[in-house]
Amino acid sequence: MQALVYNGPGKKALEDRAKPIIQAPTDAVVRITKTTICGTDLHILKGDVPTCLPGTVLGHEGVGIIEEVGSGVTMFKPGDRVLISCISACGRCDYCRKGLYSHCTTGGWILGNSIDGTQAEFVRIPYADTSLYPIPASADEEALVMLSDILPTGFECGVLNGKVQVGASVAIVGSGPIGLAALLTAQFYSPAQIIMIDLDDNRLSVSQRFGATEIVNSTDGKAAEQVMKLTGGRGVDTAIEAVGIPATFELCQNIVAPGGTIANVGVHGVKVDLHLERLWSHNVTITTGLVDTVTIPMLLKTVQSKRIDAGKLITHRFKLDQILQAYEVFGKASSTKALKVLIEA
Amino acid sequence: MQALVYNGPGKKALEDRAKPIIQAPTDAVVRITKTTICGTDLHILKGDVPTCLPGTVLGHEGVGIIEEVGSGVTMFKPGDRVLISCISACGRCDYCRKGLYSHCTTGGWILGNSIDGTQAEFVRIPYADTSLYPIPASADEEALVMLSDILPTGFECGVLNGKVQVGASVAIVGSGPIGLAALLTAQFYSPAQIIMIDLDDNRLSVSQRFGATEIVNSTDGKAAEQVMKLTGGRGVDTAIEAVGIPATFELCQNIVAPGGTIANVGVHGVKVDLHLERLWSHNVTITTGLVDTVTIPMLLKTVQSKRIDAGKLITHRFKLDQILQAYEVFGKASSTKALKVLIEA
Amino acid sequence: MQALVYNGPGKKALEDRAKPIIQAPTDAVVRITKTTICGTDLHILKGDVPTCLPGTVLGHEGVGIIEEVGSGVTMFKPGDRVLISCISACGRCDYCRKGLYSHCTTGGWILGNSIDGTQAEFVRIPYADTSLYPIPASADEEALVMLSDILPTGFECGVLNGKVQVGASVAIVGSGPIGLAALLTAQFYSPAQIIMIDLDDNRLSVSQRFGATEIVNSTDGKAAEQVMKLTGGRGVDTAIEAVGIPATFELCQNIVAPGGTIANVGVHGVKVDLHLERLWSHNVTITTGLVDTVTIPMLLKTVQSKRIDAGKLITHRFKLDQILQAYEVFGKASSTKALKVLIEA
Amino acid sequence: MQALVYNGPGKKALEDRAKPIIQAPTDAVVRITKTTICGTDLHILKGDVPTCLPGTVLGHEGVGIIEEVGSGVTMFKPGDRVLISCISACGRCDYCRKGLYSHCTTGGWILGNSIDGTQAEFVRIPYADTSLYPIPASADEEALVMLSDILPTGFECGVLNGKVQVGASVAIVGSGPIGLAALLTAQFYSPAQIIMIDLDDNRLSVSQRFGATEIVNSTDGKAAEQVMKLTGGRGVDTAIEAVGIPATFELCQNIVAPGGTIANVGVHGVKVDLHLERLWSHNVTITTGLVDTVTIPMLLKTVQSKRIDAGKLITHRFKLDQILQAYEVFGKASSTKALKVLIEA
Repeated sequence: MQALVYNGPGKKALEDRAKPIIQAPTDAVVRITKTTICGTDLHILKGDVPTCLPGTVLGHEGVGIIEEVGSGVTMFKPGDRVLISCISACGRCDYCRKGLYSHCTTGGWILGNSIDGTQAEFVRIPYADTSLYPIPASADEEALVMLSDILPTGFECGVLNGKVQVGASVAIVGSGPIGLAALLTAQFYSPAQIIMIDLDDNRLSVSQRFGATEIVNSTDGKAAEQVMKLTGGRGVDTAIEAVGIPATFELCQNIVAPGGTIANVGVHGVKVDLHLERLWSHNVTITTGLVDTVTIPMLLKTVQSKRIDAGKLITHRFKLDQILQAYEVFGKASSTKALKVLIEA
Repeated sequence: MQALVYNGPGKKALEDRAKPIIQAPTDAVVRITKTTICGTDLHILKGDVPTCLPGTVLGHEGVGIIEEVGSGVTMFKPGDRVLISCISACGRCDYCRKGLYSHCTTGGWILGNSIDGTQAEFVRIPYADTSLYPIPASADEEALVMLSDILPTGFECGVLNGKVQVGASVAIVGSGPIGLAALLTAQFYSPAQIIMIDLDDNRLSVSQRFGATEIVNSTDGKAAEQVMKLTGGRGVDTAIEAVGIPATFELCQNIVAPGGTIANVGVHGVKVDLHLERLWSHNVTITTGLVDTVTIPMLLKTVQSKRIDAGKLITHRFKLDQILQAYEVFGKASSTKALKVLIEA
Repeated sequence: MQALVYNGPGKKALEDRAKPIIQAPTDAVVRITKTTICGTDLHILKGDVPTCLPGTVLGHEGVGIIEEVGSGVTMFKPGDRVLISCISACGRCDYCRKGLYSHCTTGGWILGNSIDGTQAEFVRIPYADTSLYPIPASADEEALVMLSDILPTGFECGVLNGKVQVGASVAIVGSGPIGLAALLTAQFYSPAQIIMIDLDDNRLSVSQRFGATEIVNSTDGKAAEQVMKLTGGRGVDTAIEAVGIPATFELCQNIVAPGGTIANVGVHGVKVDLHLERLWSHNVTITTGLVDTVTIPMLLKTVQSKRIDAGKLITHRFKLDQILQAYEVFGKASSTKALKVLIEA
Repeated sequence: MQALVYNGPGKKALEDRAKPIIQAPTDAVVRITKTTICGTDLHILKGDVPTCLPGTVLGHEGVGIIEEVGSGVTMFKPGDRVLISCISACGRCDYCRKGLYSHCTTGGWILGNSIDGTQAEFVRIPYADTSLYPIPASADEEALVMLSDILPTGFECGVLNGKVQVGASVAIVGSGPIGLAALLTAQFYSPAQIIMIDLDDNRLSVSQRFGATEIVNSTDGKAAEQVMKLTGGRGVDTAIEAVGIPATFELCQNIVAPGGTIANVGVHGVKVDLHLERLWSHNVTITTGLVDTVTIPMLLKTVQSKRIDAGKLITHRFKLDQILQAYEVFGKASSTKALKVLIEA
């Protein structure tokens, strides 16, 4: 089968690989129908993710059709259409019991990382019963690809951790795909204000179409001042960090109101300053989190009932044999204006 | 001043009364600009509310302008535009400290009940600092009259008590003004389904315009069957009772899913059957509640940010000297199709 | 092997039965070391539980040693000491995903009900990975038998559903084993008052030893008055119903404070009156629930750290071949003063 | 009257001052019967609290008897015994409405800071109705002095923010008075482990008497290793920072388990490092907070019902005219082994 293989920093290739087989009774093999590329895949290609060894098939998002199941799988059978979670969850360890699937002792984010992933014709999914989700017959598969990772990430790590409230104010720092996923799902809770902050006017303009009530271009270094002005000097109830660098985390600390929450979604490479000399008395909450994808069933219902139009994150479409071109487009997002690129297998 | 006075069961009159005066340092006198009539006022006129003595000015909703404040009032001054809560809260007793304003030991629902109310040119408001809310300069006053009672009631006693969730299913039994208030505010949480149930096709049709995903006319006695069909045999996550009779509470018990919630909003005159012989093992929650109006600040923000169009509950408009006619129209809602009638003082 | 078999209403026998075998890859067979008898077993013997057919081995509590596991079991291996949950949970259906194991679509309370149970030398446990719990090497096995059903039931359905709070007041109606389990676990949250109510002075006296702050013998029909006096006329924050008849549920309605919670634990055979004509405005919450046993890991830690002495619920001890005698003693609890009877296999 | 006055950095004196008078209708004047000294008073004396101007009477804790009330005070009358909150709360601003009294727009921590405090014969209390608490007739006044600040601080900012759970593991870094207050109140929730960490063996030994399950002297720089060992390599569910320096906050980051919480209680003078390069994926929560004292009523009930022995924090007793000596003893806590010093007026 065709598969996009990571061959060490800076090297990737579309290769011919053996079709995966069932290795454990809890496994399923899924024929991929649609997948996509994540910012994390680019991190791997830069060599930033040491757990991903050369030779690994990339990709942790997608929908497909069950090809084969192990003897211990009870929820799925060949032919079932399924959504793949980016997180493999055994469903039985202490962490999984608490819904902390991201810290599953034998799973977590392994797909397209420590085991072969979804940018291929077929993929082996461990713990299939608790890592796959049935797709309703009438579903829009393209939209559902957004539920493997990006929407649950924005929703769980940004919106739910950030305790977005009815009538409250939210600022989202970063309006890339993850920031936009937070923007779309924040609207589930009807906040009064959602202020999007970014350096890129195109993305800010997309934000407005996606429901931002105000936008702030932070190029001039005065984003904090502007947010304070937009909130009557009070700051925001929820600040969502969706970039992953010290400067954006600093900004969040400058705009969060007393009693408010900073929800970190960004993947950070270095430590940041935490201004406890000021925040110790501000009654703030700071959260971090890798996505657990426990909200996939909930999100599926919102897509089915058209409470959210997840498909609008997709800007480009490719076939699997064009995946190198897809990487090209996705990697140059500022010029191509790519958000999510859909890949049909 | 002109005031609508309850003169015993079946008797009301627009009378000339002395303008109220400050009686305690925590009082304010408010000049009413807009008020409305509540179903509870009709209950009083039937003689069903023994705490309301003949001679009382009716009304517990409205907006107005501060005329005078007592020496202990720190939040308001003459000329301030204010929203009146139907619940007077001292802000300092054990119940108020917990946000249970409805059970304030010296307040609660007293306005237009045990003390003179808002269907008049002026009204005295006890505990003004914690029973009035400032109105933003740009606000639509008509819409805000809905925030004195009906919207917080539908929201707190129906939606919040009922734990309406993103992607979940909700049934609202009764699509009168309170049921519609629950319908409007349930949408803050983006449930996948909101099924409205009523006997009146006009109100069901209004429900659809207001956002119901499905409607069920229960005249044929098969509402439970239909709801079960609409929910794939599972029942609803939240059932909101917005009528107040045994039959509708029974219906809620028949449609709530395991793990679900029945939120009672209706005012009941007689006891009901609770089917613990069946429900004991269904892991359901049943809530009751008089409104606390603690969510008025939150709701104000949703009105200001246009997350909700509260004004669309208003079907008729009158001047204060036409209030007897307004009662006529509101009392015959099934023929006049009245929801809320606005009265300008 | 020896097994206690239900042979239709009023009939039970200690019979010789074939040792159970693995039927599905997710099964385990456990050699029972200790089990006990539950009030529900007596209900079955009265013929009150139609899902339990004649010929079924009774029992849904116990600890033991893994004898054999199916190919899909990943958490246990032969020789492991395990605690058996009374609830079988597949861990993968919608209900299990939400922690509502009691409503698992293919599990729930099936052990000693629709499939053979634990009052035998061996038992087959479906969905072993999510229905068994590892026992620490140093554990007191006798105490742990209380964690199969009775402690989680008192804790989840009584204490957690009842939202027992630090410094708050609790009344527990019924001081049988379940009421006492609620009493023991309520103390995890340090309420100021725990009032136990029963007709039996012996059980009330046990309650005092187990930590009740006040006891009320309700024989004179004045329990409500006494509870109101003990709570300064306010009523209790949490009322736990641990009997299952209309009179005790009525009592709970008479003693719950505004804003309080009635947590029903009792198994009811008939409907009850719910006084919504009074409670509609009292802002109360009523909960029902079959136990999910999701708190077993938490309870295990409290037993291990000696935060609770679960073993003191055990009043009598028998060998498996004396189980008919054990039933005799347990069935005549008022004269034998039995709480829980331990049976060693 | 006698009063302990701050006269600029390093200078304090017991002076004769005019008895305070009612300045606003919401004020009360309280005759102090018992007060104490807080670590924050020492900070003021070092010159670290710029809001406290020379000439201010220090002290923000105490119990006393109402001497006089303003016309707007409805909850208290002369002669009533009261507990003074360290936080003055107007009870009516947006922050107070949410229970965030520490950020009251016209109150907060002002007593013994921006207005005269409690280390005097009399004190003026603004917003008396919502800043004082009635003391039950039978109460132990000495114990209640601990409820003005130290116990609510440990409880709200440490235990509640830290979400201490039944059966869970807790580490408290710092076993001074605040750390011990967290230790005492953490036990309300029956965690399985409470590990106390400090440099001072005496305080660690006090911790053991107060309920710590394990103690760690961190002098050797290996505290993190020891905590990991004590928790089976997993880390603690809750880490409470009760010191206020970078090293102790760093330690908390090294011992918190995935999914756990770091609750900061310490007052920090400089920024700290936050290791988002590691913690971004650990699903942790970090909280900060000045105490709101909203839990005083709850804590009062736990003291009254003997669920907590707050008085055992008191190590030394003085008369008001010995207060300079009391400061001496409290300021040299490591040699005097002082925890809290009680001062009778």
